[in-house]
Amino acid sequence: MEPTTFILFGATGDLAKRKIYPALFNLFVRGKLPQAFSVVGLGRREWTDEVFQAAVERSLYQFSRTEPADKEKLNAFLEAFRYSVLDIGREEDYRKLLALVEAREQALKMPPNRLFYLSVGPEHFEPIADNIRASGLGSADGWKRLVIEKPFGHDLASARALNAKLSESFAEEEIFRIDHYLGKPVVQRLESLQQANPVIQALWTNRYIANVQITASESVGVEERAGYYDHVGAIRDMFQNHLLQLLMMAAIHLPYDSSSEKVRFKKKKIMEALVPVAQEDVGQQVVRGQYTAGSIGGQPVEGYKSEPGIAADSMNDTFIAARLLIDNNDWRGVPFYIRTGKRMNKKSTRIVVEFKEPLKQAWSQSEDGVAPNLLVIEIGPGESIALRLNTKEAGAQGGFKPIHIDLHSTPADSPEAYENLIGDALKGDPTFFAHWDEVELSWQYVQPMLDAFAENAVPLRSYAAGSRGPAESDALLAEDGYHWWFDEESEALPKNESKEGANYAYHANH
Amino acid sequence: MEPTTFILFGATGDLAKRKIYPALFNLFVRGKLPQAFSVVGLGRREWTDEVFQAAVERSLYQFSRTEPADKEKLNAFLEAFRYSVLDIGREEDYRKLLALVEAREQALKMPPNRLFYLSVGPEHFEPIADNIRASGLGSADGWKRLVIEKPFGHDLASARALNAKLSESFAEEEIFRIDHYLGKPVVQRLESLQQANPVIQALWTNRYIANVQITASESVGVEERAGYYDHVGAIRDMFQNHLLQLLMMAAIHLPYDSSSEKVRFKKKKIMEALVPVAQEDVGQQVVRGQYTAGSIGGQPVEGYKSEPGIAADSMNDTFIAARLLIDNNDWRGVPFYIRTGKRMNKKSTRIVVEFKEPLKQAWSQSEDGVAPNLLVIEIGPGESIALRLNTKEAGAQGGFKPIHIDLHSTPADSPEAYENLIGDALKGDPTFFAHWDEVELSWQYVQPMLDAFAENAVPLRSYAAGSRGPAESDALLAEDGYHWWFDEESEALPKNESKEGANYAYHANH
Repeated sequence: MEPTTFILFGATGDLAKRKIYPALFNLFVRGKLPQAFSVVGLGRREWTDEVFQAAVERSLYQFSRTEPADKEKLNAFLEAFRYSVLDIGREEDYRKLLALVEAREQALKMPPNRLFYLSVGPEHFEPIADNIRASGLGSADGWKRLVIEKPFGHDLASARALNAKLSESFAEEEIFRIDHYLGKPVVQRLESLQQANPVIQALWTNRYIANVQITASESVGVEERAGYYDHVGAIRDMFQNHLLQLLMMAAIHLPYDSSSEKVRFKKKKIMEALVPVAQEDVGQQVVRGQYTAGSIGGQPVEGYKSEPGIAADSMNDTFIAARLLIDNNDWRGVPFYIRTGKRMNKKSTRIVVEFKEPLKQAWSQSEDGVAPNLLVIEIGPGESIALRLNTKEAGAQGGFKPIHIDLHSTPADSPEAYENLIGDALKGDPTFFAHWDEVELSWQYVQPMLDAFAENAVPLRSYAAGSRGPAESDALLAEDGYHWWFDEESEALPKNESKEGANYAYHANH
Repeated sequence: MEPTTFILFGATGDLAKRKIYPALFNLFVRGKLPQAFSVVGLGRREWTDEVFQAAVERSLYQFSRTEPADKEKLNAFLEAFRYSVLDIGREEDYRKLLALVEAREQALKMPPNRLFYLSVGPEHFEPIADNIRASGLGSADGWKRLVIEKPFGHDLASARALNAKLSESFAEEEIFRIDHYLGKPVVQRLESLQQANPVIQALWTNRYIANVQITASESVGVEERAGYYDHVGAIRDMFQNHLLQLLMMAAIHLPYDSSSEKVRFKKKKIMEALVPVAQEDVGQQVVRGQYTAGSIGGQPVEGYKSEPGIAADSMNDTFIAARLLIDNNDWRGVPFYIRTGKRMNKKSTRIVVEFKEPLKQAWSQSEDGVAPNLLVIEIGPGESIALRLNTKEAGAQGGFKPIHIDLHSTPADSPEAYENLIGDALKGDPTFFAHWDEVELSWQYVQPMLDAFAENAVPLRSYAAGSRGPAESDALLAEDGYHWWFDEESEALPKNESKEGANYAYHANH
């Protein structure tokens, strides 16, 4: 791995503390940082290097999955951290930053490879990128990379404008757009399972799959983000980015030797094959919802409009469910249902793949317990992949019973999404980052929905806090003869009941 | 279940003691015997009812999977047992038997439903069947059934002659031919897995399967059966019956609501679709072997010809491997390899289904550990079904590793094959018994091989005791680009390392 200076905007912020420092530390412990590695933290606060290092150290004790038990190792890690005060708009501060970075590079005999991590609000992306270019920070002999996180724009036009601006300072291949869902071990495992196994590949088509259900439900409300969320809604906050990324990951077919170019090419092809929904048809494919008062876990919960910071007449969507169709040979005829909402009955992010029942006419589910085969990918709160089959107990004369077969469960001490993604950015591997094409196509797909919502051309359905969302969300699937799986609060996702890791065995290959 | 008299020929024999009494007892414990149930044991020894019941009781302590702990229950079970001395050739003894059976039927107020279980040598099948008819034992108002076990003939002609003879006394639907491999829970589970799961059905074709390997290797030699075995060989002892039955079970496709008629119809279709091997071509499809001196488990072992009771110039086969082709739309192009042998390196009965690798050209097994997907059905000594997939460890950057996913493991206290089969015979369910059509077609398929062997038109290859069989057996697969899986003595079958039953969870269906 090449020597790298990791330049972090927003070094005093919450994300840095919770995710970025722990991720860097765990990469360090695992030997996954470059030999020569330097971190420069930036913020408005007047911190010294020592104060910064102490803050980083505290964050590790609080948030790192590996405890920093080895004092010597910890100090070697912290030694790489420097701090510089920076006002995002002040050119002078960037020159000061450049001087510091260069001094460190010389001291550590490093080439000027610089990774700029923007852990700041999206309104700062453009000025920072401008100033990086203007100050000469980004015009050195080494490489430069920009790591940013959503939101990438507020609609198609603003996303294009932002990208045009960033492109003046960074080429597409230098921009690493984080969607942390792509960093999750279980999402990556899903890809590798399909990729390396003909028996999984064989099933991954409209020949055998009836529908795909992608759910991200939360029981929390808007929390501290009311002002922001009320202008964004579920469609921008979750649907346009995370959930469409999950759709792409579920729908692509990867060859075994898939480079990041191939992965992104295939994802783009999926987005291009999505059947566009014209503004006037949005109401047929999309359910828009907003929660009213209800109760969660026995506690009464206020309605959305009564939340502090929310306009009393807000027409914002806190729930969205949609039916998406992919018009290619693999997926024609297979609806992808996507839904996300706040203040729902439980917290759960999952993908359920429902297989066709070619023999359905001969079956009797109620009598025999023969139900569709399912592949269930739990992304949160746990991470697992389970296949549901029907079986008879050995020697039993009775009917069939569903069993759940664990294909993967992520051990508790697995790398977190940020650790995977920051490691990839340091290596320059863009596979699990969002390419601009994907972002643009996502906005393009979503834009008619945004327009229809803005004009209130789609009814805003209400659902009680703590419920499963508006009744129209169930009706959307019922139209096609399906229903949402694993929806009841009491209904646990199918999962192996054995201890993690005990459920399958690695064998040496002869 | 209808009241039944269970009339057992060979009641003082080894099979009765080891298998039949324990099977009956466990059926009794599980409430799977008819309410009115009577057993009449027959043998040449001058036993009383008490001596017989004591012998049955001893066999339970020694061989039953459930301990006869409840004395009251045990006595209720033994109370059903009566004994009658019988010389198979003496008509008079059958009249005595009839009187006893009728007396018991009257005492227990049972209709004359009689199941005749012939746990005797095949040379006795015909006289017993004759005498049953002649004595009037089988011409009552109730039903009658005949349960027999292989060998069903010595070749096609003798099998046909035997069947013609039995047919004079019993109709085909009254004859229950036991092949105890069909009674194994794991074999029955394999059927139900395929039958009720579209995702398994989808894979069960030449579209995805490369080849199927059926192995039954033993480390023992001929033991006490030398005189018999030397005239039978591996081809008659194992191949013609057990292994062709496993081939049928692996190759059939069952609809969900499969009756026993459908199962047998499908099995027959498979046998009819087997590409016949003409006598002059046997050498290309079949490897015949005989073991020479060697060592097993560090102990020196004599060669076959030196075994007591074996002719010093014997040309008998103690090993056979064959390539079978099924010419139908499901299996065209998929070789089925079958092999069985004595004095091999380990005891193992298994079916390995090797899936195709459509991406093989892009793969590099040695570097990445990407190997074919396999479905491994262990029939003995353990019973399990495992699927081998390739996966990456969560977050790992390296190559793929094979994992084995347990689809089924038979708990230690599952019903044994005989328990399942005797239970089925009592119910009159012929699903897991060999139909005459299957037996005849098997002999028909094997006959050219028997002829070629008899004329020594196929070379008798030697293999050292404790080896994997003749080198030509490996060459047979190598011709097609394959190899036998899990062949090394040290190589355990892929299996879940977790405790039995802990590896999957039953969930109520909502």
